[in-house]
Amino acid sequence: MLALRLIERKRDGGRIEPGEWRALLGAYVAGHVPDYQMAAFLMAAYLRGLDGEETASLTEAMLRSGGTLDLRGISAPRIDKHSTGGVGDKVSLVLAPLAASVGIVVPMMSGRGLGHTGGTLDKLDAIPGFRSDLTLAQARAQLMRVGCALLGQSGEIAPVDRKLYALRDATATVESIPLIAASIMSKKLAEGLTGLVLDVKRGSGSFLQTLEQGVELARTMIDLGTAHGCPVVALITAMDRPLGRACGNALETEEAIHALKGEGPPDLMEVTYAIAAEMMLLGGMVDDGATARETLEGAIASGAAAEKFKEIIEAQGGNPAVVDDPALLPQAEAIELFRAPRRGFIAQIEPRAVGRGIIALGGGRTTMEDAVDPGVGFVITVKPGDWVEAGEPIASVFARDEAGLRAGASALREAIRIGDEAEPPLPLISHRVTERGVEVYGVE
Amino acid sequence: MLALRLIERKRDGGRIEPGEWRALLGAYVAGHVPDYQMAAFLMAAYLRGLDGEETASLTEAMLRSGGTLDLRGISAPRIDKHSTGGVGDKVSLVLAPLAASVGIVVPMMSGRGLGHTGGTLDKLDAIPGFRSDLTLAQARAQLMRVGCALLGQSGEIAPVDRKLYALRDATATVESIPLIAASIMSKKLAEGLTGLVLDVKRGSGSFLQTLEQGVELARTMIDLGTAHGCPVVALITAMDRPLGRACGNALETEEAIHALKGEGPPDLMEVTYAIAAEMMLLGGMVDDGATARETLEGAIASGAAAEKFKEIIEAQGGNPAVVDDPALLPQAEAIELFRAPRRGFIAQIEPRAVGRGIIALGGGRTTMEDAVDPGVGFVITVKPGDWVEAGEPIASVFARDEAGLRAGASALREAIRIGDEAEPPLPLISHRVTERGVEVYGVE
Repeated sequence: MLALRLIERKRDGGRIEPGEWRALLGAYVAGHVPDYQMAAFLMAAYLRGLDGEETASLTEAMLRSGGTLDLRGISAPRIDKHSTGGVGDKVSLVLAPLAASVGIVVPMMSGRGLGHTGGTLDKLDAIPGFRSDLTLAQARAQLMRVGCALLGQSGEIAPVDRKLYALRDATATVESIPLIAASIMSKKLAEGLTGLVLDVKRGSGSFLQTLEQGVELARTMIDLGTAHGCPVVALITAMDRPLGRACGNALETEEAIHALKGEGPPDLMEVTYAIAAEMMLLGGMVDDGATARETLEGAIASGAAAEKFKEIIEAQGGNPAVVDDPALLPQAEAIELFRAPRRGFIAQIEPRAVGRGIIALGGGRTTMEDAVDPGVGFVITVKPGDWVEAGEPIASVFARDEAGLRAGASALREAIRIGDEAEPPLPLISHRVTERGVEVYGVE
Repeated sequence: MLALRLIERKRDGGRIEPGEWRALLGAYVAGHVPDYQMAAFLMAAYLRGLDGEETASLTEAMLRSGGTLDLRGISAPRIDKHSTGGVGDKVSLVLAPLAASVGIVVPMMSGRGLGHTGGTLDKLDAIPGFRSDLTLAQARAQLMRVGCALLGQSGEIAPVDRKLYALRDATATVESIPLIAASIMSKKLAEGLTGLVLDVKRGSGSFLQTLEQGVELARTMIDLGTAHGCPVVALITAMDRPLGRACGNALETEEAIHALKGEGPPDLMEVTYAIAAEMMLLGGMVDDGATARETLEGAIASGAAAEKFKEIIEAQGGNPAVVDDPALLPQAEAIELFRAPRRGFIAQIEPRAVGRGIIALGGGRTTMEDAVDPGVGFVITVKPGDWVEAGEPIASVFARDEAGLRAGASALREAIRIGDEAEPPLPLISHRVTERGVEVYGVE
């Protein structure tokens, strides 16, 4: 009867009290509330919304449903980042070793790709032998020793979130800001963090397409962090085109390795440095962004960041030699240049179309059960605004076979639009959101 | 993927096309769409609403999911009534034989009681031997022979409605006017009617409490009827107090028998005559309400209506002697008078509290699995506005035992409020809604 009463109340726009969230989620995990009642509740919550206190209670109830990473013995700042996801977003792979190399402890929990967006775990899987299925005890030991652990969401952490997420995915209730914020924060808070940086993507390739929605998500998560003593800072970054050049699991891992060695594409480096600098500021390790940037550039230049990546790979059973020799990563069987079909300005590189292209090549998922081919994907060497001549190579397709090459080329023809005028893309990093409010990025 | 796409669209306030309704319900009945997806869809439909065309498509899809009563061989008007339900509402038991006795063919499909509202099938079950589980073929044969059949919703008719209704009941998505209208009309249209009269209750004891909601439901059903060549007329009647005096299954059946013999309480007779007159008008059997009323009063006075009830009971396996001797109906073990606790005007007889009292006595259901005791209930001999002296008998409690008597008296103390002033109750029949619009009842 509890579930029915709470569905009714949320349906009519009422509030759910803290104890009721705990009872509802407890009964759901125990199987006493069936999926169909939870589905009706989630749709009511999606359409009626949750206020700040409800979102906090939901987060708390999800957090308490499982175990946490007890990092209280570590005195260094413990900071993670979360990205709302996009195409070509391999920031985590560069950021985690880089931040760890300057003394931040990084317990980084990531997910797998679904639909047009990639997932960090799939990119890590491209490294021969690498295992991300650490227990909380293993993760803790590695964090003490190496300062970074790259892990998947184990069954130990927020188990109700897993069950709820699968149900939301099947009932069109994913894109709700309070539900998203609670889902992310319940897992992040379980990591025992002292700070969190959010990378909120906006533009056609992101799931929150407008700046307003991005800022609302950021504010919701900042409030949740504040309530739990975990300060949160968000950057709003562009996802109206892929980030960097490589799109596809092993190709992105390779690009991340190049980035750790100082050879990354400028947009990837900018976003990575900006997030790492926020992590250092949150950790109280520097007083200003300029000093942070200097330290971070030094860690790349000295090789310390690349060395840290080797340590992490080795600690998680992978072959660290991939850092020196990325050719050890899985390779595609068939590679072909993609040439500009006409002259003009690159008007658009549509991330969703690129993401669908990766799925067509076998490198992405439409359901969580799909297996992915790590070697396939694209390297797109132009950016919106570039001038190209007809027939000029602007990308490469990496595929399993001839059919893949054709599917890949077809996807790129759809994704890359060439026009007579250069349309201005979104600023790479446009806003910074903190407890104090929203500011335009870079204006201090 | 279809279900997910339709959930998304309805969630965002979009329209579902006719073919999509058929596909969705077909997949749901076949088990290809799980309950949790349908639950999310229903909540989205509840909160976003359905437009007229969508409601018609849903009705059509539900109607086509099962069989229909083929009454094309019958040339007489085939007219049913539907009531939105209330406390003490035994109109169907008087109306069906009365209308049949003046030449209307009445294929009446009814339901069981749930919560505070009673159900016609439970009242019929009080008649020893009576069976309402007729097949469509049996119902058809009886209609040809007797002119009336009182049946339950068999699995043959609108099976998807049954499955959907159970899900709505568990997910707080019952009280949606388009969903209610489609559910009722899909069953009524399966009866092969040439007309339908709706009794839309309003007031505290009805599930649609305002006049606006009642009119909206009436209009929705009138539109659905018109689209299927089945004219619908609705009367808005009062459910701010019980109808008649008896509340409880066998007690109401007994009151209905008295009514068929000309000894019914005035309010019950008024509502019954009004609905029966609408049925005669819809059937083109009379030109005006006054003539209809005269014919109907004649059928009661001559004994034809009571005789028809005996025929129906006999045709459905029951003991027709109950009509001559209502003492053959199940009787309560314990009976006690209930006296006015103070002097004053009867300010309110709250139907929900009376309904809850019947459940407390064992004569109602909180879930569809509960068994009901037919003999228990109340006879309340006062009406709102009556003046009573302290200690004057105003009701009787019919119970299983002493504990029941106490529970019943306690329910009546809650239900019957006596005050210093007479508050005006709702008009018994306030409005008439037809294709042409809403008119105040009785003003011609």
